Amino acid sequence: MSFFSFELDPALAADPVFDLHRRGKMTMSATVPLTSRDDLSLAYTPGVARVCEAIAEDESLYPDFTWTANTVAVVTDGSAVLGLGNIGPKAAMPVMEGKAVLFKQFGGVDSIPICLDTQDVEGIIAAVKAMAPSFGGINLEDISAPRCFEIERRLDAELDIPVFHDDQHGTAVVTLAALRNAAALLGRSFADLRVVISGAGAAGVAITKTLIAAGVDGANMIVCDSRGIIHGERTDLSPVKAALAATTNISGRSGGITEALIGADVLVGVSGGNIGEEALAGMAPGAIIFALANPTPEVPPAIAHKYAAIVATGRSDFPNQINNVLAFPGIFRGALDVRASTITDGMKVAAADAIASIVADDLRPDAIVPSPLDPRVGPAVAAAVAAAAIRDGVARRTPAPAPTQARQHA
Amino acid sequence: MSFFSFELDPALAADPVFDLHRRGKMTMSATVPLTSRDDLSLAYTPGVARVCEAIAEDESLYPDFTWTANTVAVVTDGSAVLGLGNIGPKAAMPVMEGKAVLFKQFGGVDSIPICLDTQDVEGIIAAVKAMAPSFGGINLEDISAPRCFEIERRLDAELDIPVFHDDQHGTAVVTLAALRNAAALLGRSFADLRVVISGAGAAGVAITKTLIAAGVDGANMIVCDSRGIIHGERTDLSPVKAALAATTNISGRSGGITEALIGADVLVGVSGGNIGEEALAGMAPGAIIFALANPTPEVPPAIAHKYAAIVATGRSDFPNQINNVLAFPGIFRGALDVRASTITDGMKVAAADAIASIVADDLRPDAIVPSPLDPRVGPAVAAAVAAAAIRDGVARRTPAPAPTQARQHA
Repeated sequence: MSFFSFELDPALAADPVFDLHRRGKMTMSATVPLTSRDDLSLAYTPGVARVCEAIAEDESLYPDFTWTANTVAVVTDGSAVLGLGNIGPKAAMPVMEGKAVLFKQFGGVDSIPICLDTQDVEGIIAAVKAMAPSFGGINLEDISAPRCFEIERRLDAELDIPVFHDDQHGTAVVTLAALRNAAALLGRSFADLRVVISGAGAAGVAITKTLIAAGVDGANMIVCDSRGIIHGERTDLSPVKAALAATTNISGRSGGITEALIGADVLVGVSGGNIGEEALAGMAPGAIIFALANPTPEVPPAIAHKYAAIVATGRSDFPNQINNVLAFPGIFRGALDVRASTITDGMKVAAADAIASIVADDLRPDAIVPSPLDPRVGPAVAAAVAAAAIRDGVARRTPAPAPTQARQHA
Repeated sequence: MSFFSFELDPALAADPVFDLHRRGKMTMSATVPLTSRDDLSLAYTPGVARVCEAIAEDESLYPDFTWTANTVAVVTDGSAVLGLGNIGPKAAMPVMEGKAVLFKQFGGVDSIPICLDTQDVEGIIAAVKAMAPSFGGINLEDISAPRCFEIERRLDAELDIPVFHDDQHGTAVVTLAALRNAAALLGRSFADLRVVISGAGAAGVAITKTLIAAGVDGANMIVCDSRGIIHGERTDLSPVKAALAATTNISGRSGGITEALIGADVLVGVSGGNIGEEALAGMAPGAIIFALANPTPEVPPAIAHKYAAIVATGRSDFPNQINNVLAFPGIFRGALDVRASTITDGMKVAAADAIASIVADDLRPDAIVPSPLDPRVGPAVAAAVAAAAIRDGVARRTPAPAPTQARQHA
């Protein structure tokens, strides 16, 4: 009898990715012995009752005596999965499991994928709030804009654990790291960079805010959505985009991506569209192009190199891969280590600076960010984020000595 | 620097149970390699997208290519934890983690503790329905009666995965197993047993229903709540108790536990109160007493032996421990192996018969159930439950050859 209760399509059966994904990609295990009556009487009844009573008496003991302080839920509604769109919660699960195992591999964080059977904003908020005591943090994932903004804002305000929408902030942190190093390599003043963001979804909005928080002058930034440059005269703007219009593009430029790029130093593509050479030709000399759409960059790297001194993409098969895995494991590791109540802008900027610093002494145009597999990244990000949390007054303890090392089954 | 950010009360620090529970009792890990770019491109982007697309195209692939088919949520609202009562979701977590690791140890089931920050029936139902795609089954735990009945009924009806309230059915299954063997040992006809249940909460109601489903004549059963015998003339009965009044105690006996026990063959205590000797004295000769309250049985075993031929408790330090761990790991193992859509009465009775059969060839008055550590129990229960699911028409596939064996990290 085959493991499968059905005949797998031969085309799928021939693809090694399906073999790898059989039965999923993760498992859980006990960290305590369970082989004798004494073991059971400590780990379960009657002994466990004493731990329950102590927590009921003093809730501050909760993170010390449960796994929750090292546990993050990866929560999605399946509405904006990779470049696949609204494929629903079940089809999203392989991505969430992947995220969960990356959390463990690169941050030592126990992570549980939660795929929600609702795409209603209030339904999502209510479900996450209900399950929140079970976790030390919430990583929102692949939830479509503009719903993601409201969901993150409300959950962050109403919960006392970190809430982080990775499609926004993870992307923004790694983009900031890459831009810091690109500017340094080219000898440019970070504050004076004229930056164009193509795309005003989750990533575009967060990148804009994060670059401004890190020192780029918002007045010189231009954000484009599918209808062109966002400016104050437009009457079709959502509240989030109206806020962007108020903080960017102070000269009130209008038009499309071609008009936006005239004289620009930096293009960050997070739109998934295609940007033609005639638009790129208007950029300033020695430009920087980050074409981050996956799997197809907005500009093919070979074309981008004709107009830019430094090029980055989201792909692993080109140099300078701007990948969220550089950020989220270390960010949550650092936040959990100090039991941060939220993730501040200062913590995000600190994460970006830590990522950038890993390769700062050996910058080359094709090496402005570390490899996603570089083992120095996670610990460096975690330490910087923990320190920033303490600085920003959101830490609830100093870091533990070896928090990433889980005990193993005896 | 100490791991703890606080000074633990010396009395707690001296108790080994707190050392065991530091950082909780479980962890998660990847079952796929994540050490090269190729690994990442298969387990995460871009490869994972092909698995997502396949599931979006054909949802029946979902259980085969995610960890969900082997994963059960242990869900509580913290309203009825052990004998501690309504201690809330955080204080309940150590018990839920304990349950989760027992699921893995004795059933090979990946289990995730979910402690809900709501005790509202509709809120609990909505939260569990929202997260349900993330799991292959839902084990409800330590939710107080009568809310637990409505929550379980609604979730079982509205979800296509098994929903099982262990405090009801796990207790009922093991009690049935013990009673089968006790009756066999004493040469009694199971159908003719005159059974008194002391306690009409989650466990009492479920035991009554399960014994009837297994062949005990309900007409001869008597259920007592804190106000005495449940009978049709009482005007203070909840709907659940009114249903008990209609199916039990056909002679309409009234009074308290003393009146209930006159001539009884079996007493099952699931009340947590104390039952005095004057009441026990009325039982029939060669009686059976299961005093299951934890940690303090309704009748001390030494007293019970004066009036009964066979005595069982819920405690590990006396013979005949009636412990749910004999049931729930194997029940979910079997249900998951055949992807059962629900857990039927037939599956529960099959589980009880499997537990009873383990020790059936070597019955002694102090060995009517197997040890909780007996490694034969889980597989035997799983096989019996899977077969019953197929018989009852709720299985969605035949069992896989080696479903409990998770792959390990390469």
